[in-house]
Amino acid sequence: MRLRNLKDKDILIDNCDYLIKEPTKLINNWKNEFNNNNPIHLEIGMGKGDFIYEMALNNPDINFVGIEKYTGVIARAIKKFPHKLANLRIINMDALNLDNVFNKEIETIYLNFSDPWPKKRNASRRLTSPIFLNIYENLFKKDKIIILKTDNLELFASSLINLSEFNYKFKDVNLDLANSDIVNVKTEYEKKFMAKGIKINYLVAIK
Amino acid sequence: MRLRNLKDKDILIDNCDYLIKEPTKLINNWKNEFNNNNPIHLEIGMGKGDFIYEMALNNPDINFVGIEKYTGVIARAIKKFPHKLANLRIINMDALNLDNVFNKEIETIYLNFSDPWPKKRNASRRLTSPIFLNIYENLFKKDKIIILKTDNLELFASSLINLSEFNYKFKDVNLDLANSDIVNVKTEYEKKFMAKGIKINYLVAIK
Repeated sequence: MRLRNLKDKDILIDNCDYLIKEPTKLINNWKNEFNNNNPIHLEIGMGKGDFIYEMALNNPDINFVGIEKYTGVIARAIKKFPHKLANLRIINMDALNLDNVFNKEIETIYLNFSDPWPKKRNASRRLTSPIFLNIYENLFKKDKIIILKTDNLELFASSLINLSEFNYKFKDVNLDLANSDIVNVKTEYEKKFMAKGIKINYLVAIK
Repeated sequence: MRLRNLKDKDILIDNCDYLIKEPTKLINNWKNEFNNNNPIHLEIGMGKGDFIYEMALNNPDINFVGIEKYTGVIARAIKKFPHKLANLRIINMDALNLDNVFNKEIETIYLNFSDPWPKKRNASRRLTSPIFLNIYENLFKKDKIIILKTDNLELFASSLINLSEFNYKFKDVNLDLANSDIVNVKTEYEKKFMAKGIKINYLVAIK
Protein backbone atom coordinates (compact mmCIF):
# COMPACT_ATOMS: atom_id res chain seq x y z
CA MET A 1 0.00 0.00 0.00
CA ARG A 2 1.84 3.10 -1.20
CA LEU A 3 0.74 6.55 -0.14
CA ARG A 4 2.15 9.97 -0.77
CA ASN A 5 4.72 10.70 1.89
CA LEU A 6 3.64 12.64 4.89
CA LYS A 7 5.94 15.59 5.33
CA ASP A 8 6.30 14.91 8.99
CA LYS A 9 6.68 11.14 8.72
CA ASP A 10 10.18 11.02 10.20
CA ILE A 11 9.10 13.13 13.15
CA LEU A 12 6.05 10.93 13.72
CA ILE A 13 8.19 7.80 13.64
CA ASP A 14 10.96 9.20 15.84
CA ASN A 15 8.50 10.36 18.47
CA CYS A 16 6.22 7.32 18.50
CA ASP A 17 6.50 5.63 21.88
CA TYR A 18 5.13 2.29 20.72
CA LEU A 19 7.21 1.89 17.55
CA ILE A 20 10.18 -0.38 18.18
CA LYS A 21 13.28 1.19 16.63
CA GLU A 22 15.71 -1.70 17.10
CA PRO A 23 13.54 -4.81 16.93
CA THR A 24 16.40 -7.34 16.58
CA LYS A 25 17.40 -6.46 20.16
CA LEU A 26 14.10 -7.89 21.40
CA ILE A 27 14.53 -11.38 19.92
CA ASN A 28 13.86 -13.95 22.68
CA ASN A 29 12.85 -11.05 24.89
CA TRP A 30 9.39 -9.98 23.82
CA LYS A 31 8.00 -11.19 27.13
CA ASN A 32 10.01 -8.48 28.86
CA GLU A 33 8.93 -5.82 26.39
CA PHE A 34 5.30 -6.57 27.23
CA ASN A 35 5.99 -7.36 30.89
CA ASN A 36 3.83 -10.49 30.79
CA ASN A 37 3.52 -14.00 29.36
CA ASN A 38 0.45 -13.33 27.25
CA PRO A 39 0.35 -14.76 23.74
CA ILE A 40 1.77 -12.58 20.99
CA HIS A 41 -0.11 -12.13 17.71
CA LEU A 42 1.63 -10.65 14.67
CA GLU A 43 0.09 -8.75 11.77
CA ILE A 44 2.33 -8.65 8.70
CA GLY A 45 1.52 -5.63 6.56
CA MET A 46 -0.52 -3.66 9.12
CA GLY A 47 -1.11 -0.79 6.71
CA LYS A 48 -2.78 2.15 8.43
CA GLY A 49 -3.37 0.06 11.54
CA ASP A 50 -7.17 -0.10 11.86
CA PHE A 51 -7.20 -3.86 12.33
CA ILE A 52 -4.38 -4.25 14.84
CA TYR A 53 -5.35 -1.21 16.92
CA GLU A 54 -8.94 -2.44 17.28
CA MET A 55 -7.76 -6.01 17.98
CA ALA A 56 -5.44 -4.71 20.71
CA LEU A 57 -8.26 -2.68 22.27
CA ASN A 58 -10.68 -5.62 22.14
CA ASN A 59 -8.22 -8.22 23.47
CA PRO A 60 -6.24 -6.85 26.41
CA ASP A 61 -4.94 -10.34 27.29
CA ILE A 62 -3.20 -10.74 23.95
CA ASN A 63 -0.11 -8.80 22.89
CA PHE A 64 -0.05 -7.52 19.32
CA VAL A 65 2.84 -6.61 17.06
CA GLY A 66 2.18 -5.00 13.69
CA ILE A 67 4.84 -4.69 11.04
CA GLU A 68 4.73 -2.53 7.93
CA LYS A 69 7.37 -2.15 5.24
CA TYR A 70 6.44 1.29 3.94
CA THR A 71 7.53 4.23 6.11
CA GLY A 72 4.87 6.54 4.73
CA VAL A 73 2.15 4.04 5.58
CA ILE A 74 3.25 3.30 9.13
CA ALA A 75 3.53 7.07 9.71
CA ARG A 76 -0.15 7.36 8.78
CA ALA A 77 -0.99 4.63 11.28
CA ILE A 78 0.83 6.57 13.99
CA LYS A 79 -1.00 9.76 13.05
CA LYS A 80 -4.32 7.91 13.18
CA PHE A 81 -3.56 6.10 16.45
CA PRO A 82 -1.27 8.36 18.50
CA HIS A 83 -1.90 6.73 21.89
CA LYS A 84 0.22 3.88 23.14
CA LEU A 85 -1.59 0.72 24.23
CA ALA A 86 0.11 -1.55 26.77
CA ASN A 87 -0.40 -4.56 24.47
CA LEU A 88 0.53 -3.09 21.06
CA ARG A 89 3.89 -2.47 19.40
CA ILE A 90 4.63 -1.69 15.77
CA ILE A 91 7.74 -2.05 13.61
CA ASN A 92 8.77 -0.46 10.30
CA MET A 93 10.39 -3.49 8.68
CA ASP A 94 10.36 -6.00 5.85
CA ALA A 95 8.80 -9.42 6.58
CA LEU A 96 11.89 -11.06 5.06
CA ASN A 97 13.77 -10.12 8.24
CA LEU A 98 11.21 -11.46 10.72
CA ASP A 99 13.42 -14.35 11.83
CA ASN A 100 15.89 -11.82 13.23
CA VAL A 101 13.13 -10.36 15.41
CA PHE A 102 11.14 -13.33 16.75
CA ASN A 103 12.28 -16.79 17.81
CA LYS A 104 9.43 -19.15 18.69
CA GLU A 105 7.48 -16.31 20.27
CA ILE A 106 4.41 -15.91 18.06
CA GLU A 107 1.07 -17.65 18.39
CA THR A 108 -0.92 -16.28 15.46
CA ILE A 109 -0.04 -14.45 12.23
CA TYR A 110 -2.60 -12.24 10.48
CA LEU A 111 -2.31 -11.49 6.78
CA ASN A 112 -4.93 -8.91 5.83
CA PHE A 113 -5.31 -7.84 2.21
CA SER A 114 -1.66 -8.47 1.46
CA ASP A 115 -0.26 -7.32 -1.86
CA PRO A 116 -1.43 -10.02 -4.31
CA TRP A 117 1.58 -9.68 -6.65
CA PRO A 118 -0.63 -10.92 -9.48
CA LYS A 119 2.10 -11.62 -12.03
CA LYS A 120 3.50 -15.15 -11.93
CA ARG A 121 7.08 -13.93 -11.96
CA ASN A 122 6.38 -12.09 -8.68
CA ALA A 123 4.59 -14.99 -6.97
CA SER A 124 7.49 -15.49 -4.55
CA ARG A 125 6.81 -12.04 -3.10
CA ARG A 126 3.35 -13.04 -1.89
CA LEU A 127 3.28 -13.33 1.89
CA THR A 128 2.16 -16.97 1.59
CA SER A 129 4.88 -18.01 -0.86
CA PRO A 130 7.15 -20.87 0.25
CA ILE A 131 9.87 -18.27 0.99
CA PHE A 132 7.71 -16.59 3.61
CA LEU A 133 6.11 -19.79 4.93
CA ASN A 134 9.65 -21.02 5.62
CA ILE A 135 10.45 -17.84 7.54
CA TYR A 136 7.24 -18.18 9.60
CA GLU A 137 8.25 -21.71 10.69
CA ASN A 138 10.71 -20.33 13.24
CA LEU A 139 8.54 -17.52 14.52
CA PHE A 140 5.81 -19.70 15.99
CA LYS A 141 5.95 -20.87 19.59
CA LYS A 142 4.08 -24.18 19.28
CA ASP A 143 0.93 -24.48 17.19
CA LYS A 144 1.18 -22.46 14.01
CA ILE A 145 -1.89 -20.38 13.19
CA ILE A 146 -2.24 -18.18 10.11
CA ILE A 147 -5.42 -16.16 9.58
CA LEU A 148 -5.73 -14.63 6.13
CA LYS A 149 -8.25 -12.30 4.52
CA THR A 150 -8.20 -11.06 0.94
CA ASP A 151 -10.46 -9.96 -1.85
CA ASN A 152 -7.95 -11.28 -4.39
CA LEU A 153 -8.91 -14.68 -5.86
CA GLU A 154 -5.43 -15.58 -7.11
CA LEU A 155 -3.75 -14.75 -3.80
CA PHE A 156 -6.37 -16.78 -1.96
CA ALA A 157 -6.00 -19.77 -4.30
CA SER A 158 -2.20 -19.76 -4.16
CA SER A 159 -2.33 -19.42 -0.37
CA LEU A 160 -4.52 -22.54 -0.12
CA ILE A 161 -2.08 -24.45 -2.33
CA ASN A 162 1.08 -23.33 -0.51
CA LEU A 163 -0.33 -23.72 3.00
CA SER A 164 -1.50 -27.26 2.22
CA GLU A 165 1.95 -28.04 0.79
CA PHE A 166 3.40 -26.88 4.15
CA ASN A 167 1.04 -29.31 5.93
CA TYR A 168 -1.29 -26.72 7.38
CA LYS A 169 -4.89 -27.87 7.89
CA PHE A 170 -7.75 -25.49 7.24
CA LYS A 171 -9.84 -25.08 10.34
CA ASP A 172 -12.08 -22.51 8.74
CA VAL A 173 -12.61 -21.23 5.20
CA ASN A 174 -15.18 -18.69 4.07
CA LEU A 175 -15.63 -17.19 0.62
CA ASP A 176 -18.06 -14.46 1.62
CA LEU A 177 -16.98 -13.12 4.99
CA ALA A 178 -19.46 -10.24 5.08
CA ASN A 179 -22.38 -12.68 4.99
CA SER A 180 -20.94 -15.14 7.51
CA ASP A 181 -21.30 -15.27 11.30
CA ILE A 182 -17.51 -15.14 11.78
CA VAL A 183 -16.41 -12.46 14.28
CA ASN A 184 -14.38 -10.08 12.17
CA VAL A 185 -12.48 -6.85 12.88
CA LYS A 186 -12.43 -4.99 9.60
CA THR A 187 -9.49 -3.20 7.97
CA GLU A 188 -9.93 0.13 6.21
CA TYR A 189 -9.69 -1.63 2.82
CA GLU A 190 -12.21 -4.22 3.89
CA LYS A 191 -14.86 -1.67 4.80
CA LYS A 192 -14.52 -0.13 1.33
CA PHE A 193 -14.64 -3.51 -0.43
CA MET A 194 -17.67 -4.66 1.54
CA ALA A 195 -19.49 -1.42 0.78
CA LYS A 196 -18.96 -2.19 -2.91
CA GLY A 197 -20.24 -5.77 -2.49
CA ILE A 198 -16.84 -7.29 -3.23
CA LYS A 199 -16.61 -10.72 -1.59
CA ILE A 200 -13.92 -11.23 1.03
CA ASN A 201 -12.18 -14.61 1.27
CA TYR A 202 -11.05 -15.85 4.66
CA LEU A 203 -9.09 -18.80 6.00
CA VAL A 204 -7.70 -20.09 9.27
CA ALA A 205 -4.77 -22.45 8.72
CA ILE A 206 -3.28 -24.46 11.59
CA LYS A 207 -0.43 -26.89 12.04
CA MET B 1 -30.69 -33.07 -9.42
CA ARG B 2 -34.34 -34.17 -9.50
CA LEU B 3 -36.27 -34.20 -12.74
CA ARG B 4 -39.77 -35.27 -13.56
CA ASN B 5 -39.74 -38.96 -14.31
CA LEU B 6 -39.44 -40.01 -17.87
CA LYS B 7 -42.27 -42.40 -18.68
CA ASP B 8 -39.92 -44.75 -20.41
CA LYS B 9 -37.10 -44.57 -17.86
CA ASP B 10 -37.26 -48.25 -16.90
CA ILE B 11 -37.14 -49.29 -20.54
CA LEU B 12 -34.18 -46.97 -21.18
CA ILE B 13 -32.31 -48.36 -18.20
CA ASP B 14 -33.12 -52.01 -18.98
CA ASN B 15 -32.00 -51.66 -22.57
CA CYS B 16 -28.86 -49.57 -21.99
CA ASP B 17 -25.83 -51.62 -22.99
CA TYR B 18 -23.35 -49.54 -21.02
CA LEU B 19 -25.25 -49.34 -17.73
CA ILE B 20 -23.95 -51.91 -15.26
CA LYS B 21 -26.91 -53.65 -13.60
CA GLU B 22 -25.02 -55.63 -10.95
CA PRO B 23 -21.97 -53.51 -10.16
CA THR B 24 -20.95 -55.40 -7.00
CA LYS B 25 -20.11 -58.38 -9.22
CA LEU B 26 -17.36 -56.32 -10.87
CA ILE B 27 -15.43 -55.50 -7.69
CA ASN B 28 -11.73 -56.35 -8.27
CA ASN B 29 -12.67 -57.09 -11.86
CA TRP B 30 -13.08 -53.75 -13.62
CA LYS B 31 -9.99 -54.47 -15.70
CA ASN B 32 -11.87 -57.34 -17.32
CA GLU B 33 -14.98 -55.25 -17.88
CA PHE B 34 -12.89 -52.74 -19.84
CA ASN B 35 -10.58 -55.38 -21.31
CA ASN B 36 -7.48 -53.31 -20.54
CA ASN B 37 -5.29 -51.91 -17.77
CA ASN B 38 -6.03 -48.27 -18.41
CA PRO B 39 -6.65 -46.01 -15.43
CA ILE B 40 -10.23 -45.73 -14.24
CA HIS B 41 -11.74 -42.34 -13.43
CA LEU B 42 -15.01 -42.09 -11.50
CA GLU B 43 -17.59 -39.33 -11.58
CA ILE B 44 -19.90 -39.34 -8.56
CA GLY B 45 -23.22 -37.69 -9.39
CA MET B 46 -22.89 -37.71 -13.19
CA GLY B 47 -26.27 -36.06 -13.68
CA LYS B 48 -27.28 -35.98 -17.32
CA GLY B 49 -23.83 -37.15 -18.37
CA ASP B 50 -22.44 -34.25 -20.42
CA PHE B 51 -19.15 -34.19 -18.54
CA ILE B 52 -18.36 -37.89 -18.43
CA TYR B 53 -19.44 -38.58 -22.01
CA GLU B 54 -17.24 -35.80 -23.36
CA MET B 55 -14.35 -36.84 -21.12
CA ALA B 56 -14.64 -40.42 -22.40
CA LEU B 57 -14.69 -39.24 -26.01
CA ASN B 58 -11.68 -36.96 -25.45
CA ASN B 59 -9.61 -39.48 -23.51
CA PRO B 60 -9.76 -42.93 -25.14
CA ASP B 61 -6.86 -44.20 -22.97
CA ILE B 62 -8.76 -43.61 -19.75
CA ASN B 63 -11.76 -45.65 -18.62
CA PHE B 64 -14.65 -43.73 -17.10
CA VAL B 65 -17.39 -44.82 -14.73
CA GLY B 66 -20.23 -42.45 -13.89
CA ILE B 67 -22.61 -43.08 -11.04
CA GLU B 68 -25.92 -41.35 -10.41
CA LYS B 69 -28.37 -41.94 -7.57
CA TYR B 70 -31.55 -40.72 -9.25
CA THR B 71 -33.11 -43.13 -11.74
CA GLY B 72 -34.94 -40.38 -13.62
CA VAL B 73 -31.69 -38.46 -14.08
CA ILE B 74 -29.58 -41.36 -15.32
CA ALA B 75 -32.42 -42.24 -17.74
CA ARG B 76 -32.07 -38.77 -19.22
CA ALA B 77 -28.33 -39.30 -19.63
CA ILE B 78 -29.02 -42.54 -21.51
CA LYS B 79 -31.55 -40.78 -23.73
CA LYS B 80 -29.05 -38.03 -24.46
CA PHE B 81 -26.12 -40.39 -25.06
CA PRO B 82 -27.55 -43.62 -26.48
CA HIS B 83 -24.32 -44.95 -27.98
CA LYS B 84 -21.97 -47.15 -26.01
CA LEU B 85 -18.34 -46.06 -25.79
CA ALA B 86 -15.69 -48.70 -25.14
CA ASN B 87 -14.30 -46.69 -22.23
CA LEU B 88 -17.51 -45.60 -20.47
CA ARG B 89 -19.83 -47.38 -18.04
CA ILE B 90 -22.55 -45.93 -15.86
CA ILE B 91 -24.25 -47.15 -12.69
CA ASN B 92 -27.53 -46.17 -11.02
CA MET B 93 -26.39 -46.28 -7.39
CA ASP B 94 -25.80 -44.37 -4.18
CA ALA B 95 -22.22 -43.26 -3.44
CA LEU B 96 -22.58 -44.70 0.06
CA ASN B 97 -22.24 -48.17 -1.50
CA LEU B 98 -19.14 -47.44 -3.60
CA ASP B 99 -16.88 -49.61 -1.46
CA ASN B 100 -18.89 -52.63 -2.56
CA VAL B 101 -18.17 -51.82 -6.19
CA PHE B 102 -14.50 -50.75 -6.31
CA ASN B 103 -11.51 -51.99 -4.37
CA LYS B 104 -8.31 -50.01 -5.01
CA GLU B 105 -9.23 -49.61 -8.68
CA ILE B 106 -9.82 -45.85 -9.11
CA GLU B 107 -7.27 -43.20 -10.04
CA THR B 108 -9.33 -40.01 -10.02
CA ILE B 109 -12.71 -39.00 -8.61
CA TYR B 110 -14.67 -36.10 -10.12
CA LEU B 111 -17.27 -34.23 -8.10
CA ASN B 112 -19.08 -31.79 -10.35
CA PHE B 113 -21.70 -29.45 -8.92
CA SER B 114 -22.63 -31.89 -6.20
CA ASP B 115 -25.68 -31.19 -4.06
CA PRO B 116 -24.43 -28.58 -1.56
CA TRP B 117 -26.77 -29.67 1.25
CA PRO B 118 -26.61 -26.13 2.62
CA LYS B 119 -28.14 -26.78 6.05
CA LYS B 120 -25.63 -27.65 8.75
CA ARG B 121 -27.67 -30.64 9.91
CA ASN B 122 -27.25 -32.15 6.42
CA ALA B 123 -23.51 -31.45 6.13
CA SER B 124 -22.69 -35.17 6.40
CA ARG B 125 -24.54 -35.77 3.11
CA ARG B 126 -22.11 -33.59 1.15
CA LEU B 127 -19.89 -35.72 -1.08
CA THR B 128 -16.79 -34.33 0.65
CA SER B 129 -18.00 -34.99 4.20
CA PRO B 130 -15.78 -37.24 6.34
CA ILE B 131 -18.27 -40.08 5.79
CA PHE B 132 -17.65 -40.02 2.03
CA LEU B 133 -13.93 -39.23 2.26
CA ASN B 134 -13.60 -42.37 4.36
CA ILE B 135 -15.41 -44.42 1.71
CA TYR B 136 -13.15 -43.00 -1.03
CA GLU B 137 -10.03 -44.14 0.88
CA ASN B 138 -10.54 -47.74 -0.26
CA LEU B 139 -11.52 -46.97 -3.83
CA PHE B 140 -8.22 -45.45 -4.89
CA LYS B 141 -5.48 -47.56 -6.39
CA LYS B 142 -2.41 -45.60 -5.24
CA ASP B 143 -2.34 -41.81 -5.36
CA LYS B 144 -5.68 -40.32 -4.42
CA ILE B 145 -6.90 -37.54 -6.71
CA ILE B 146 -10.17 -35.66 -6.24
CA ILE B 147 -11.16 -32.95 -8.73
CA LEU B 148 -14.09 -30.82 -7.62
CA LYS B 149 -16.08 -28.03 -9.27
CA THR B 150 -18.93 -26.10 -7.73
CA ASP B 151 -20.61 -22.72 -7.79
CA ASN B 152 -21.57 -23.16 -4.13
CA LEU B 153 -19.32 -21.25 -1.72
CA GLU B 154 -20.24 -23.25 1.39
CA LEU B 155 -19.68 -26.60 -0.31
CA PHE B 156 -16.33 -25.39 -1.63
CA ALA B 157 -15.23 -24.06 1.77
CA SER B 158 -16.26 -27.21 3.65
CA SER B 159 -14.55 -29.35 0.99
CA LEU B 160 -11.27 -27.46 1.53
CA ILE B 161 -11.56 -27.96 5.29
CA ASN B 162 -12.44 -31.68 5.13
CA LEU B 163 -9.91 -32.56 2.43
CA SER B 164 -7.11 -30.85 4.38
CA GLU B 165 -8.20 -32.73 7.51
CA PHE B 166 -7.84 -35.97 5.49
CA ASN B 167 -4.28 -34.89 4.57
CA TYR B 168 -4.96 -34.08 0.94
CA LYS B 169 -2.74 -31.38 -0.57
CA PHE B 170 -4.17 -28.88 -3.02
CA LYS B 171 -2.30 -29.05 -6.28
CA ASP B 172 -4.56 -26.53 -7.95
CA VAL B 173 -7.26 -24.14 -6.75
CA ASN B 174 -9.16 -21.63 -8.84
CA LEU B 175 -12.03 -19.38 -7.78
CA ASP B 176 -13.02 -18.24 -11.26
CA LEU B 177 -12.67 -21.20 -13.58
CA ALA B 178 -14.24 -19.48 -16.62
CA ASN B 179 -11.47 -16.87 -16.62
CA SER B 180 -8.60 -19.29 -16.03
CA ASP B 181 -6.44 -21.21 -18.51
CA ILE B 182 -7.38 -24.56 -16.95
CA VAL B 183 -8.56 -27.14 -19.51
CA ASN B 184 -12.16 -27.75 -18.53
CA VAL B 185 -14.93 -29.97 -19.89
CA LYS B 186 -18.17 -28.26 -18.87
CA THR B 187 -21.27 -29.83 -17.38
CA GLU B 188 -24.76 -28.74 -18.43
CA TYR B 189 -25.15 -26.82 -15.16
CA GLU B 190 -21.78 -25.17 -15.62
CA LYS B 191 -22.62 -23.78 -19.05
CA LYS B 192 -25.76 -22.17 -17.59
CA PHE B 193 -23.89 -20.74 -14.59
CA MET B 194 -21.08 -19.35 -16.71
CA ALA B 195 -23.58 -17.71 -19.06
CA LYS B 196 -25.02 -15.92 -16.02
CA GLY B 197 -21.54 -14.81 -14.86
CA ILE B 198 -21.65 -17.01 -11.75
CA LYS B 199 -18.10 -17.85 -10.67
CA ILE B 200 -17.10 -21.52 -10.63
CA ASN B 201 -14.75 -22.77 -7.92
CA TYR B 202 -12.32 -25.57 -8.74
CA LEU B 203 -9.82 -27.67 -6.84
CA VAL B 204 -7.49 -30.58 -7.43
CA ALA B 205 -6.71 -32.43 -4.18
CA ILE B 206 -4.04 -35.13 -4.04
CA LYS B 207 -2.66 -37.48 -1.43
